[in-house]
Amino acid sequence: MNTPAPPPRGFDDTEFKGRVARAQKMMHQAGLDALLLTTEADIRYFTGFLTRFWESPARPWFVVVPAETAPVAIIPSIGSILMEQTWIDDIRTWVSPDYEGEGMALLGDSLRQIAGQSGRVGIPKGPESSLRMPLEDFEALTTSIAPARICSDSGIVRKLRMVKSEAEIAKIRHACCIAAQAFEQVGTFAHEATPLSEVFRRFQMACLEAGADWVSYLAGGAGHSGYHDVISPAGPTPLQRSDILMLDTGLVWDGYFCDYDRNFAIEEKMQADQSHHNRLMDAVDAGAEAARPGATASDVHRAMDRILGGAEGSGHASRLGHGLGSQLTEWPSFTAGDQTPLEEGMVVTLEPCLATGDGRIMVHEENVVIRLGGVEYLSPKASRNLDVI
Amino acid sequence: MNTPAPPPRGFDDTEFKGRVARAQKMMHQAGLDALLLTTEADIRYFTGFLTRFWESPARPWFVVVPAETAPVAIIPSIGSILMEQTWIDDIRTWVSPDYEGEGMALLGDSLRQIAGQSGRVGIPKGPESSLRMPLEDFEALTTSIAPARICSDSGIVRKLRMVKSEAEIAKIRHACCIAAQAFEQVGTFAHEATPLSEVFRRFQMACLEAGADWVSYLAGGAGHSGYHDVISPAGPTPLQRSDILMLDTGLVWDGYFCDYDRNFAIEEKMQADQSHHNRLMDAVDAGAEAARPGATASDVHRAMDRILGGAEGSGHASRLGHGLGSQLTEWPSFTAGDQTPLEEGMVVTLEPCLATGDGRIMVHEENVVIRLGGVEYLSPKASRNLDVI
Repeated sequence: MNTPAPPPRGFDDTEFKGRVARAQKMMHQAGLDALLLTTEADIRYFTGFLTRFWESPARPWFVVVPAETAPVAIIPSIGSILMEQTWIDDIRTWVSPDYEGEGMALLGDSLRQIAGQSGRVGIPKGPESSLRMPLEDFEALTTSIAPARICSDSGIVRKLRMVKSEAEIAKIRHACCIAAQAFEQVGTFAHEATPLSEVFRRFQMACLEAGADWVSYLAGGAGHSGYHDVISPAGPTPLQRSDILMLDTGLVWDGYFCDYDRNFAIEEKMQADQSHHNRLMDAVDAGAEAARPGATASDVHRAMDRILGGAEGSGHASRLGHGLGSQLTEWPSFTAGDQTPLEEGMVVTLEPCLATGDGRIMVHEENVVIRLGGVEYLSPKASRNLDVI
Repeated sequence: MNTPAPPPRGFDDTEFKGRVARAQKMMHQAGLDALLLTTEADIRYFTGFLTRFWESPARPWFVVVPAETAPVAIIPSIGSILMEQTWIDDIRTWVSPDYEGEGMALLGDSLRQIAGQSGRVGIPKGPESSLRMPLEDFEALTTSIAPARICSDSGIVRKLRMVKSEAEIAKIRHACCIAAQAFEQVGTFAHEATPLSEVFRRFQMACLEAGADWVSYLAGGAGHSGYHDVISPAGPTPLQRSDILMLDTGLVWDGYFCDYDRNFAIEEKMQADQSHHNRLMDAVDAGAEAARPGATASDVHRAMDRILGGAEGSGHASRLGHGLGSQLTEWPSFTAGDQTPLEEGMVVTLEPCLATGDGRIMVHEENVVIRLGGVEYLSPKASRNLDVI
C-alpha cells in the first residue's frame, strides 16, 4: 500500500478567521472581553503557529483573542519570524528568557488595552487543560499587573476544538494512512526473539519512512495472551512464539495526530487470542454504531462496555476512547461519566480494552470521524482476523 | 564510529533516596512540610517513573514529597502498574478521567495527612516551571480541599535538578554519542536538491538507527550563509549548492536528552562560512573557559558574547546556552541577567549564535558538564573545519 497524496499543508486564512468568529460569538454570549491562551494546541488553533520548539519549557507564549478583532500574539522574540509567517499581524515580543517576570509587563499592558481595565478575560481551566506559564507569573498577572478579571473561558476553546473542520479531518486521515503503512511493515522486523525495544525503534523508523513528520508517541506491549500495561517503555525482553504484540502510535503529520493500535500474534495464533480479538472488534462495531450526533460520550462507553463486560476496575477500561486532533488525546472521553453530546465532525478513537486473565489485557483502537449517517473510519479498519507475523 | 556500550538503564534506589534526602534537608531549611509535584520531569526526578504517556493531557499526576518519609504517588489507576515498578511504595490511585475534579479529593486527603491541616506545601512556581493540572482543580485545592498553605518550593526542585549525578551525566553522554553517529550519516542523505523536510525525516531515522529511544526534538535550517530562524518546521525547499545546513537534535535515551547541533556546507564551502564557523567555535571555547564552578551563568554569556559581538537584539542571541537533562532545556540560562552560580555537575549547552548578514544567523551548540578543573565535553566537540557534504 502506498500512502495517498497528502492534503495541502497549513490552512487557508479563512479557516482561522472562522475559528475566531465562532469564538467571538461564544465570548459575547459568555460576557468575555478576551481569551488568553498559553498552550501549544490552543495557540496553534487560532494562529497556525506550528513548531517543535514547545519542547523547551524555558519560554511562555501568549495569544489574546479580543472580542471583536484578530488575535494578538505576545511572544518571545525568538518566535517572531515564524509567527510573521502566520495570518497574525499584531505580534508583540519580549526578549526571553527574562527571569524578571517573563513578558508579564507586555502581557498586562496588552490585556488592559484589549479587554479594558475591568474586562473579563477567559482562560481554559477545565478538564484536560493546563496553564503553560510559571504560576508565580500568573499570580502576579491576576493580582497587580492586569486588573482585568481573569476567569474561566466557559469551555469555549474546548467546544471549538472538539469539532474538526474538513481540512483538519484530512490531516488526521493522512496521519492514519501513514501509520497504516508502518503497521504493514511490522512483520519485517518483529519476530520471535526480537527485543521489544528494537521493535519500538524500528516501528518509529517505519513511521518516518512512510511520511510522518515526527513520532510523538509510541506505546505498546507484548506477552502471552496480552500485556500487563500499555504505558511502560519498551524493555529488552525478546518476543516469544505466540506472544501478542501491540503497537499504538501517535505520529504527527502537519501538526495532527493519529492514535490507533494493532495487535499481532508472533509466529502462531492461539485460539483464545483470536476470540479476544473478535470481542474487541465487536466492541469497536458497537461503539461505532453508538457514536452518532445527539448521543453522548457515555452512550458510546456503555455500548462498548456491554460487549467487553467485566474489565471494570482496570485503569484502562475506565476510558474506551477519546477525542483526537492536534493533541494525542482530547475531549470528549468515552467514560461512564462524560455526558458531552456528540456532534458531526468530532474525531474520536474507539479503544476497547479487554481483560484476558492473569492481569493481562488486550486493547484495540480505531480512529473515526462522526458523520450524520454514522462514523467514517479514518484508520483503515483492522480485519477481524488477528494478524500472524 | 560505533556507539559505545550504553550505561545501565534506570537508577539504583540509592540515587532516588539521595535526591529525597537533599530535598528534605532544603525543605527543613525553608520551613516546608511537603513538596507537591505535577510535571513529568519533576515526578520522574523523585520516582523514576518514565513513560511517554505524558503526551496525553487527559490526566493529571501528582507526587508528594513529605518532610521525613518517602514520596507518595497520587496517580490515575492506569499508571499504577508502572509506578509499582519504581522504588515508590505508597501509591494511591483514582479512576481517571473523572471530570468531577481529577483526583482532588484523594490529593486533598493525602496533603492533609502528610503536611497537616496547616502545613506548608511547596510547589515549583518560578522560571521555566509550570503547573500540570487544570487550573480549576488547583483553585479548588488551594481554597476548600486542602487547607494546608500551598506556596513556592523556594526553588528547591530547580536547585536539585540543576546539578546532575554521575549516573545522569552518563545517560546524557550516551544520548550525545548516539546523536554523533547520526550526524556522521548526514552526508549520505543530504545533498544538493534534497528537500529540507526529507533531511529532517532521514535524520530522525538515523538517530533511531543509532540507538535513540525516541526523537523528541529536531530543529534546523538551511540557506545561503545561514538561516533565518531555527524553530520553523522543515519545509519542502531543496538544499542548494553552498547552502549552510544546520541540524539540532534533542533525542532521548533512558529519559535524558542531548541537545546539540552541527552545521554542514552543501557540496562546497564559502570562505565566509568557514570564518563564521571559526567565530562560533571561538565563542564555544570562550564559553567553555568561563564555565567554571563559582562563575555565574551571566559570566559565560559575557565571555561568548564578547566573541560574537553585534548579534544583540536577535531573539536567538539573547540566550547562548542553557541547562540540559531530563528536559531539552533546563536552568540555568546563559543570558546577561541570569546570576545563577555554576556548580560542578551542571550539564549545560554552549550555544553561540552569530548574525551573518541579511537577517541570517549561524548557530553552533555543544554539550558539556562543568567539572572542578574545567568543562568536560559530552558531545564530541566539532572540528573547527566546517564539514562539506
